[in-house]
Amino acid sequence: MTQFVAPTLEDIRAAAARIAAYARVTPVLDAAALDELAGARLFFKCEHLQVGGAFKFRGACNAVWSLTEAEAARGVVTHSSGNHGAALALAAKTRGIPAHIVVPEGAVAAKLANIERAGGIIHRCAATQAAREATCAQVQRETGATLVHPYADARVMAGQGTIVLELLQQVPDLDAVIVPIGGGGLASGCAIALRALRPGTRLVGAEPAGADDAFQSFARGQRITSVVPHTVCDGLRATIGEPNFELLRSHGVEVITADDAAVLAAMRQLWTELKQTVEPSSALVLAVLLARRERFAGQRVALVLSGGNVDLDALPFTTRPAGT
Amino acid sequence: MTQFVAPTLEDIRAAAARIAAYARVTPVLDAAALDELAGARLFFKCEHLQVGGAFKFRGACNAVWSLTEAEAARGVVTHSSGNHGAALALAAKTRGIPAHIVVPEGAVAAKLANIERAGGIIHRCAATQAAREATCAQVQRETGATLVHPYADARVMAGQGTIVLELLQQVPDLDAVIVPIGGGGLASGCAIALRALRPGTRLVGAEPAGADDAFQSFARGQRITSVVPHTVCDGLRATIGEPNFELLRSHGVEVITADDAAVLAAMRQLWTELKQTVEPSSALVLAVLLARRERFAGQRVALVLSGGNVDLDALPFTTRPAGT
Repeated sequence: MTQFVAPTLEDIRAAAARIAAYARVTPVLDAAALDELAGARLFFKCEHLQVGGAFKFRGACNAVWSLTEAEAARGVVTHSSGNHGAALALAAKTRGIPAHIVVPEGAVAAKLANIERAGGIIHRCAATQAAREATCAQVQRETGATLVHPYADARVMAGQGTIVLELLQQVPDLDAVIVPIGGGGLASGCAIALRALRPGTRLVGAEPAGADDAFQSFARGQRITSVVPHTVCDGLRATIGEPNFELLRSHGVEVITADDAAVLAAMRQLWTELKQTVEPSSALVLAVLLARRERFAGQRVALVLSGGNVDLDALPFTTRPAGT
Repeated sequence: MTQFVAPTLEDIRAAAARIAAYARVTPVLDAAALDELAGARLFFKCEHLQVGGAFKFRGACNAVWSLTEAEAARGVVTHSSGNHGAALALAAKTRGIPAHIVVPEGAVAAKLANIERAGGIIHRCAATQAAREATCAQVQRETGATLVHPYADARVMAGQGTIVLELLQQVPDLDAVIVPIGGGGLASGCAIALRALRPGTRLVGAEPAGADDAFQSFARGQRITSVVPHTVCDGLRATIGEPNFELLRSHGVEVITADDAAVLAAMRQLWTELKQTVEPSSALVLAVLLARRERFAGQRVALVLSGGNVDLDALPFTTRPAGT
């Protein structure tokens, strides 16, 4: 990844204009019971209600509509077994161009179905990073499609940063914003927008304790790529991207971790009190806040609920049918 | 219930002003996948995001703030093991007055906890209609508290009707509005507001097939009180109220039923596609629409999601933990 140029606030504003016709302005919800629990005033930015059920559509849509006509005609390609793959397929559909999605063996059937439903062209490969990249490169050679990386991509970062533009319209006076951190695309876009518009508002990255490569990377001052992820947060198993690490470090973003038990408890709290069906990767933001309650006491905190694509037939907790 | 005087549009407007400081303007959500499924344009009015997790707060709040100072000082009383009890307790709290809630034996623990959390004073009684009414009357005699009936009450109807005022601001051009029907308070308020403001918009009452006393009552032209409810929709087991029946009949409200299997399927669809945690009584509105798809084909339809108070430990369907 040479010559990476980070997006600016102007790029994020341009992204907002570019995606306005396709993406949703997602609502901000709150619940008195969660405020009481946290001892803080919480605002949940509902990206699980975004097109495709995740914030990923913003970045994908900005990337697709940033292409020239000639580039667009050759399509886009990415490797992703999760929300980014479906988001890119949906974004490509808005421009009527092909989206090639490289999917490793063993991907969750429900997520494959989302990609297919969105009209994505699926390319199977072995479940290794090398196989993903090789297959992606091959599709690029054969089709001339443009690679849209899930997070190490300035257009994607700019798209994700549009969340902050909306959020600040909806809740102008925030002490902190908490976003989940996997590859770091969402955090990168938000960090740029926040520093430009609200330098006094802290950005906190929430990371699963079982996939804490970003936490370790910031602690040691260098990017750690050796963490083998083990977490229920299926959307956050990626290693932080190279440009994402540099950008977030230079912006002084803090990372806080929470373990899976805390994530599952928060997921239930969001379902029960906020009435929102979110995936574990989203519930993590509340888990992190509750794990470090004293750090947010009395503050006004926005939490980005990043996605809601969870399979009710495979909930990460047990439920009992009524009457048993 | 003698000398019942139905509320007017002006009463509903007054209710909106009265509750504005306490109730929420709930959002309207939609999802492309549900539109496709229905073959219609669907708008979900999210009353499960109302204070207390159900539309009931509107009517309760209007009733509480309609009282004179002297009346208010003596408190309010109702019999309800469900959302109305908690809503009345919450509404009373906004005015700092006591709320006596008569709860029959066998009430769901989670709902009792909601009433207690809201500061309601619980009075237990046997699980019969006669015991409920006798206990209620006794509390009234002892305390001078004002009875706020869950649905056969003009102030409550007017409060529930404020949903339509909001909805028409949010989505002005609707062909139909679907609301769940139990005692008929919600439907009554909505019928009055719709006839006054949008006489061309149909109001449809959604009723569980296993508690279809309203459906039978309209079919026979007289109020049927002999139905023994058997349905997963725990919020809709009440018999339609006397004034509610007369009012809804004179407004030509249509009732459509759906069975429990359709309700549970719709509940899952709302969780999966709209990302909303709703209770069975709410999911019923979608079940009814899908059961009579041809009646709504190509139309713009608002569906009122009435509440979201469901216990994740007692879901009315089975889920499997991940990996099993």
